[in-house]
Amino acid sequence: MRHEIPPRSGTAFTLDRGQRLTVIDPQGEQVADLLAFRRDDIDEVISSGRTLDYASRIFLTTGDKLYSNRSNVLLEIVADTVGRHDFLLTPCSADTFRIIYGDTEPHRGCFGNLAHALAPYGIGPDRIPVAFNVFMNVAVDGASGALEVRPPLSRAGDHVTFEAREDLIVGLTACSALQSNNYAFKPIQYEIA
Amino acid sequence: MRHEIPPRSGTAFTLDRGQRLTVIDPQGEQVADLLAFRRDDIDEVISSGRTLDYASRIFLTTGDKLYSNRSNVLLEIVADTVGRHDFLLTPCSADTFRIIYGDTEPHRGCFGNLAHALAPYGIGPDRIPVAFNVFMNVAVDGASGALEVRPPLSRAGDHVTFEAREDLIVGLTACSALQSNNYAFKPIQYEIA
Repeated sequence: MRHEIPPRSGTAFTLDRGQRLTVIDPQGEQVADLLAFRRDDIDEVISSGRTLDYASRIFLTTGDKLYSNRSNVLLEIVADTVGRHDFLLTPCSADTFRIIYGDTEPHRGCFGNLAHALAPYGIGPDRIPVAFNVFMNVAVDGASGALEVRPPLSRAGDHVTFEAREDLIVGLTACSALQSNNYAFKPIQYEIA
Repeated sequence: MRHEIPPRSGTAFTLDRGQRLTVIDPQGEQVADLLAFRRDDIDEVISSGRTLDYASRIFLTTGDKLYSNRSNVLLEIVADTVGRHDFLLTPCSADTFRIIYGDTEPHRGCFGNLAHALAPYGIGPDRIPVAFNVFMNVAVDGASGALEVRPPLSRAGDHVTFEAREDLIVGLTACSALQSNNYAFKPIQYEIA
């Protein structure tokens, strides 16, 4: 069964150990911010710092594992038709839109959408770390360190599949930030198998 | 007054708004992991994801601000004689030494040292995010995304000064990881003014 996350919104759901989550970009050039918490102890959550350290790489793809703050594997990437995602930046938020875009009445962003979706699971906004930003294309200049948010490389139908290594609570969005999605807000789809 | 953090250890202290913390590498090629929490609400902590997003750069130096998970500025870098530090990786831990170095009886690392030093302030280990790793030299290949931990560029006496923008609890280490410090463990010094 395929679920759809409308533009600029988010959701949360449980994923059992061994289940596979496929995140699909139905129209192309759309980002999905993904978070995963251990279901029986929500203080354990994916950690960009642990994961990038163990991978010795900032760009993750098929075969790479998403480690938690306690150095356990929570998710493994088992399929990826794109190969370029971001694990450096936190979900866009009202503050992002205020500080980067200068919005005076900012959208709550992926951060607000995730906080809303995760609240029923007892997960508060301060517990939201750097997300694994599926399809997000952030270029890094190795000399200057400059970051540049570029349009995703994903085309319509591209997808990434994650296998759960623990029982999880997952948060997932259709990203709300203009730069991330080449200035068009689109839905994200997902399937659980 | 100059304080010294012995090799492979850590400490924590308070820093008042407006005070300046200078972190000194007395012998050269030594890393110090730095964390800062808002003193009156320890759920607010420096955030690599927010900071790198707002700076649009992974390498931070004089004039750059360290933002919190709530997008407030906690520290500003006001002096820096080196100009190369890391804000991608979490503090080294027993798991780091087990997974990366294959140690069977691993040191507790900066993570364990920070957890121990921060415990009296009510800050638990799960609240330790990506640290600002002063003097840590992590090269990023923009094409492949490969990370490489190289010897610090710091020479004896090099230093970085941070000004507190809020009343803070600060954790600081003399890093315990071989790669980070060019395979020699040395002290770190600091001054508060």
